[in-house]
Amino acid sequence: MIGAGFAGLRAVRRLATEPVDVVLVDRHNYNTFQPLLYQVATAGLDEGGVAHTIRAIFADDANVEVELGTVTGVDLAARKVHLNGGSVGYDALIIAAGATTNDFAIPGVSDHAFPLYTLAEAIRLREHVLCCFEDAERDPALVDEGALTVVIVGGGPTGVETAGTLAELFTKVLSRGYRNIDVRRSRVVVIEMGTELLASFRPASRRHALESLDERDVEVRFGARVAEVSARGVRLASGEELATHTVVWTAGVRPNPLADHLELEQAPGGRIVVEPDLSLPGRPEVFVVGDIAAPRDRAGRLLPQLAPVAMQTGTHAAEQILRARDGKPTKAFRYRNKGTMATIGRHAAVADLPLRITLRGTIAWFAWLLLHLIYLIGFENRAQVLVQWAWNYWTWNWGPRLVIGRDA
Amino acid sequence: MIGAGFAGLRAVRRLATEPVDVVLVDRHNYNTFQPLLYQVATAGLDEGGVAHTIRAIFADDANVEVELGTVTGVDLAARKVHLNGGSVGYDALIIAAGATTNDFAIPGVSDHAFPLYTLAEAIRLREHVLCCFEDAERDPALVDEGALTVVIVGGGPTGVETAGTLAELFTKVLSRGYRNIDVRRSRVVVIEMGTELLASFRPASRRHALESLDERDVEVRFGARVAEVSARGVRLASGEELATHTVVWTAGVRPNPLADHLELEQAPGGRIVVEPDLSLPGRPEVFVVGDIAAPRDRAGRLLPQLAPVAMQTGTHAAEQILRARDGKPTKAFRYRNKGTMATIGRHAAVADLPLRITLRGTIAWFAWLLLHLIYLIGFENRAQVLVQWAWNYWTWNWGPRLVIGRDA
Repeated sequence: MIGAGFAGLRAVRRLATEPVDVVLVDRHNYNTFQPLLYQVATAGLDEGGVAHTIRAIFADDANVEVELGTVTGVDLAARKVHLNGGSVGYDALIIAAGATTNDFAIPGVSDHAFPLYTLAEAIRLREHVLCCFEDAERDPALVDEGALTVVIVGGGPTGVETAGTLAELFTKVLSRGYRNIDVRRSRVVVIEMGTELLASFRPASRRHALESLDERDVEVRFGARVAEVSARGVRLASGEELATHTVVWTAGVRPNPLADHLELEQAPGGRIVVEPDLSLPGRPEVFVVGDIAAPRDRAGRLLPQLAPVAMQTGTHAAEQILRARDGKPTKAFRYRNKGTMATIGRHAAVADLPLRITLRGTIAWFAWLLLHLIYLIGFENRAQVLVQWAWNYWTWNWGPRLVIGRDA
Repeated sequence: MIGAGFAGLRAVRRLATEPVDVVLVDRHNYNTFQPLLYQVATAGLDEGGVAHTIRAIFADDANVEVELGTVTGVDLAARKVHLNGGSVGYDALIIAAGATTNDFAIPGVSDHAFPLYTLAEAIRLREHVLCCFEDAERDPALVDEGALTVVIVGGGPTGVETAGTLAELFTKVLSRGYRNIDVRRSRVVVIEMGTELLASFRPASRRHALESLDERDVEVRFGARVAEVSARGVRLASGEELATHTVVWTAGVRPNPLADHLELEQAPGGRIVVEPDLSLPGRPEVFVVGDIAAPRDRAGRLLPQLAPVAMQTGTHAAEQILRARDGKPTKAFRYRNKGTMATIGRHAAVADLPLRITLRGTIAWFAWLLLHLIYLIGFENRAQVLVQWAWNYWTWNWGPRLVIGRDA
């Protein structure tokens, strides 16, 4: 089992109760609840609330072995996974190595932009934004240079959620703390290549998202393409320059480099092509699931790289391994779309549910809160997130504004 | 006001309600609740629970300005505090710059030992210990080299608390997670130069601390002196070598280097000598409080570097500034000893209270829990710590075992 994200954890949980030996490999010792990463980046939640130690999850499953390591390659013929310092043989393999940020080879992105895909990245973005405010408090001239301006590239769910929450952080939370700078001069700008925010959502949801960002004074630029990112600004393809100290990069992901490394057939975008049962063509003992895989729906369309797809493909792969062990034929994967959600800020969210039900505003926001609490792993994390949300809601004095760095 | 530790915060809180302008300078944007740092280091509490953003504390006090920066010097004649990038003038000054770890110039300590005085240090120790276990799980031969051995130098409260809690972490928590290593082979060793643990406590408390560590299989070496620390072990003055990957340094503190830098009269140990009213000799507008100061009790003995002394001296200095403003003479500082406590582990703590009352065991432990909850800053931190303590108590499956590092 490679990867302890949504897909990997679901697969291991399904296998943990069966008489099979499982080795779970991940490069971190914790699972990250990615849908709430943007709240860590925007000082709304502590890092501890959205991460869960993998060993703690499987502490009582004696047949699950957790190994911390980076996968350097897979020898499909010899049925071996190579790690930095060792290798693990397998009878059946599930590859759930996930995705990583795609910089589309745009100059300066990998050096100067802040991605938002791992926990360490979320903490780094939070500490950077807070340091920008501290710098400007000491030297208010920096405000003119864009110290209080955040440019978010990408109008998908992560971009919209980060933009709306940052705007609330600036106008409601940080506005009370500083004496030398006028926090009303802070700006949040979203740059979207296309003509819509949340392009995968229904039209009513897209409109509500745009209106909600507008109410929060977030500027949205459509049809804008980033040509270059530097430490002090963004240059658009049109030639226009935006002065900013913070560029958040949510323009897209690409599969984990392992997908290229394995030299397997890849779908457009680089995801690994799989059979309808999610196994690798010609390798019935290997399954590929989650963001690194390219499963398709019945109409042949690629499924999106979302948490529900990852969870369902993870469970499905585990079940097919058990069926194969029992001599049964494998089944094709069927995605059950339970809907998609995004939250823009307090009392502002959208939810596209099945049966053409679309929720907006406060009801969607409460549904979003409830659902994320349910899907969080562990009572302790749920309690902690609930306490912080309640506190943030009543006081607007968000706690997790720490700049710890590494100055031990 | 220099420093936002226990002393600095108390002073600023006292001044915040008065018609005076306060500038609070600290190198971090948060206050650390140091008595619980060892619980961050031992994976019992999240870093967010023991830290509080300074701006959040004074968000509604318009007369308090917070400045993030490092003090590079104080010009007492010109009444100016120099910072990295700027300076702040003052009418009255409180120096509460605290202390730092003292390596006593023993070779290898600053490079290889883990101090436990700042939040970043606590996180670093936690991540290091967990990585040692992960390394040993991959390569069990490392156990013989001391990968699962922690040597704690210093038998004061921090050393005792860290030792007892690490032993519980190893035998109760981590024992359930690993498959390839026998966690019972882990060792916790305390090295104490003198003949007693908790030398400042009463004899009954010292005995209970030693017994409690003994019950947890912590080895205590008295009369042992560290000659050198390396990445792979400790050499004692006797010539004996202990193989370990982790040396925790709680042997003592020395005042912030600012104390030397200011070229003022220093007491033995380097703390700044103060008048009975805590002002600097010859500088009635400057007060020195907390761990960097050398206040004395009525018998002329130096007061210990403890949180209660810091808090009381901080408040006292603020009150004397207000008295001087009103043309009143200043008062001498009187320390009200409310007792000292240390906790060794679950249901094991000691408390030396006034009137010769000494508490031990479960009752001391509950008193310790309650008192630390009360003194934590902010409802949110209290709620978070309470949730984590309750969870840890019932499940022995401590959550905050994250190794996040900086691999963004």
